[in-house]
Amino acid sequence: MIINRFVKIILISEMLVKFVSYETKHKISDMKSYIEENKTRFYEELFSLLRIPSVSASKEHKEDMLRCARRLAELLKQAGADRAEVMPTSGNPVVFGEKIISPTARTVLVYGHYDVQPAEPLDKWNTDPFEPVIHDGAIWGRGANDDKGQLFMHIKAFEFMLRTGELRHNVKFIFEGEEEISSPSLPSWMEQNKELLKADICLVSDTTFISEKVPSINCGMRGLSYLEVKVTGPNKDLHSGHYGGAVANPINTLCDMISSLIDKDGRVTVKGFYDDVEELSEEDRSQLARAPFDIDEYKAFLDIDEVKGEKGYTTLERTGIRPCLDVCGIWGGYTGEGAKTVLPSEAHAKISMRLVPNQLSSKITKLFVEHFKSIAPPYVKVEVKPCEGGDGFLIPITSDAYKAASRAMGEVYGIEPVPSRGGGSIAVLAEMQKILGIDPLLMGFGLERDTIHSPNESYLLSQLFNGMESIALFYKYYSE
Amino acid sequence: MIINRFVKIILISEMLVKFVSYETKHKISDMKSYIEENKTRFYEELFSLLRIPSVSASKEHKEDMLRCARRLAELLKQAGADRAEVMPTSGNPVVFGEKIISPTARTVLVYGHYDVQPAEPLDKWNTDPFEPVIHDGAIWGRGANDDKGQLFMHIKAFEFMLRTGELRHNVKFIFEGEEEISSPSLPSWMEQNKELLKADICLVSDTTFISEKVPSINCGMRGLSYLEVKVTGPNKDLHSGHYGGAVANPINTLCDMISSLIDKDGRVTVKGFYDDVEELSEEDRSQLARAPFDIDEYKAFLDIDEVKGEKGYTTLERTGIRPCLDVCGIWGGYTGEGAKTVLPSEAHAKISMRLVPNQLSSKITKLFVEHFKSIAPPYVKVEVKPCEGGDGFLIPITSDAYKAASRAMGEVYGIEPVPSRGGGSIAVLAEMQKILGIDPLLMGFGLERDTIHSPNESYLLSQLFNGMESIALFYKYYSE
Repeated sequence: MIINRFVKIILISEMLVKFVSYETKHKISDMKSYIEENKTRFYEELFSLLRIPSVSASKEHKEDMLRCARRLAELLKQAGADRAEVMPTSGNPVVFGEKIISPTARTVLVYGHYDVQPAEPLDKWNTDPFEPVIHDGAIWGRGANDDKGQLFMHIKAFEFMLRTGELRHNVKFIFEGEEEISSPSLPSWMEQNKELLKADICLVSDTTFISEKVPSINCGMRGLSYLEVKVTGPNKDLHSGHYGGAVANPINTLCDMISSLIDKDGRVTVKGFYDDVEELSEEDRSQLARAPFDIDEYKAFLDIDEVKGEKGYTTLERTGIRPCLDVCGIWGGYTGEGAKTVLPSEAHAKISMRLVPNQLSSKITKLFVEHFKSIAPPYVKVEVKPCEGGDGFLIPITSDAYKAASRAMGEVYGIEPVPSRGGGSIAVLAEMQKILGIDPLLMGFGLERDTIHSPNESYLLSQLFNGMESIALFYKYYSE
Repeated sequence: MIINRFVKIILISEMLVKFVSYETKHKISDMKSYIEENKTRFYEELFSLLRIPSVSASKEHKEDMLRCARRLAELLKQAGADRAEVMPTSGNPVVFGEKIISPTARTVLVYGHYDVQPAEPLDKWNTDPFEPVIHDGAIWGRGANDDKGQLFMHIKAFEFMLRTGELRHNVKFIFEGEEEISSPSLPSWMEQNKELLKADICLVSDTTFISEKVPSINCGMRGLSYLEVKVTGPNKDLHSGHYGGAVANPINTLCDMISSLIDKDGRVTVKGFYDDVEELSEEDRSQLARAPFDIDEYKAFLDIDEVKGEKGYTTLERTGIRPCLDVCGIWGGYTGEGAKTVLPSEAHAKISMRLVPNQLSSKITKLFVEHFKSIAPPYVKVEVKPCEGGDGFLIPITSDAYKAASRAMGEVYGIEPVPSRGGGSIAVLAEMQKILGIDPLLMGFGLERDTIHSPNESYLLSQLFNGMESIALFYKYYSE
């Protein structure tokens, strides 16, 4: 329910999207001029975050994580937080900040993450991923959107609300440093800090609009199970002439095993994989089918001749309501320039499964480990290492918070946002629902064009500033 | 017919190997003392070659190739060649050297190659691959055996024969710099230098004994077709959450395609692949089956529970008389530390096919390109790039040269060498037969324990010195 660069506005059902003209109660013009006046400072502040290569997947960036956390705490203080500190966890630190207006006021917990995806492949970037630049109306660099750019909107909206004296809520911030590796430390940290984190709603900007022209609020995300596998054949690299044909090649074997994980109908063959998947009713599916989507534009955008996925489901269903399995990385043998004839000892792959609500990541991970070992032929040894995981979740669209967000965004964009379901995962939010009893609200301002996780990540300035305005307005309407 | 570290001497048929006691006509003791007296100089000279990273697979070593060629020409001059020069080709230069004793004498053309395989994976080496060391009775470093160590024996045997005044043959040398990339430039250079290269036999030391205890002379090698394939899905790396399940993943697709290349009986599915493969008679196969081989030692050496290969053939047949297909390298997506969720744009593999005599490499390469494109599903784009190739060949064991080599080695090792068939490839030798009409004689002194093409390549000093003696004796018996 995501990639709707391909949407044709004229097709949009009026049930899904309607033009709105809210009465402007808040001085939006003030926020606009506040942004205009402070733009240079905003850029400097955001760039100071983007320049820190806070890549959580790689141990070598340990120091960068701490530097980035400290810088964030500084920015929260400067914005007006009473308290802003870097708190240790069993992994990368959490930045916690708060401003308590009144013990009886509603409390908004803002969640964001300061870690970023690895920038590789570096040769595909047009500019240095950790030296942000502005051109073509956007900021370019790793984290420009995900999630440094998006969390920065919250700090600035908070700053604005404080300076105009209009903030009527208590605000708490948690910015974690392990979202891109599925937040292994945050759940236990939350368990230990339940009192500190008490809040009515958790506001998150880490998602993507349904299209550039159709603002949306994400009401469900997929879960994730991510594993690394290793297939070992002979105990050393061999001469492919001397042994080729007589000894199982671990790359060929890994390919066989991976190939067997998805059947000819595009279904994952891991035993029990679909047991907990909720099959949607025909009615639900026809509701979903009304979402605007143009398959030809989709294919043209990706330069592919055909889409591919589970038989019996549409493209939007395949990412919105169905689980899947993808190899995210594979390597083995000689991968340098030219030809080296080798029968390698090992082959490796990173395998991700996106899960739908009800599928428990821990259960699927266990099923995968069992399945992968069970299909290993006798001529190789197989290791399977679970790396990351998190459950999917759904968010009620009937809450005060949802309504306030919808109204705020409608006012800024002149169009009511569509509730959508995302194919991606924010593992920790399901945990937060369980541990703290707080529902998340996904007020994300990313666009597909931002190519997060990929080279040349960017974030449109218009989304950055509209996001700040929308968040400020959210506080306004959430208090009414 | 190769890996016979696993041989049990007690099982060896007397038809294949018999102990011999040749009358010593040549003063072998002279060669032994010559080696003893000059050992330090020999090490220095050989190490000066091994220190040059003459990796032909990688363009960045262009200068190293030239340096290595020049150093070889120097060594030939110092050994006593009348002429020794670095000659340009369309690729890396050839070192040509000669000593003409008499226009009526037999001429031996010595072939070797000064290029080496890439040293990767570097972290698996115990010492610097390009800083040779001696320990445990062996020289360790890239090229220690393949082929710098082996060609060096020829220079020193030649030097010895000249210094003792016993050389009765004309000797020519060609040392090429592209053997490890299938000698793309040498055939046309040979065409242009037919007159210069006229000879009666081509002596080559670039092969491996059937076992450490069983000297052998290689009488046939497999050919090679080596290709690189690229599968492209979407035109950019995608977020695996946003697109996973709806867009074909090129890694999964590449795995499917590779998996389909070998069927459940271990046969290559490329259409027409077996058309020219000669099926051996039951009698020939039972002859081959008499070669000593211990499957349990073989599996223990490789630490595998089961072997795997074409149904209906033994392990020795699978490498000796049957063709095969192996993936030598595969890569795509995120291969760094930790978890990155990406649906990549591209996936790559390097695929090698070992061919038996009669299978033409050019034909098999063409068949593979056609086949691989034909099995590409509509949701990806496929590129196939032929990299290397060469035909297999057989060598008559009835020639004077074979007999001289057999006698020489028998004398040095005290055991008559076994004729064997190798699974590896020296592409250019089949070309040489065609262009120059010269049969090769494969007097190689490598051992499986040398792990050529792999980390920690080594060459036993005993083989280095026994090789020098054997070659010197070859000259002796070849003139009788």
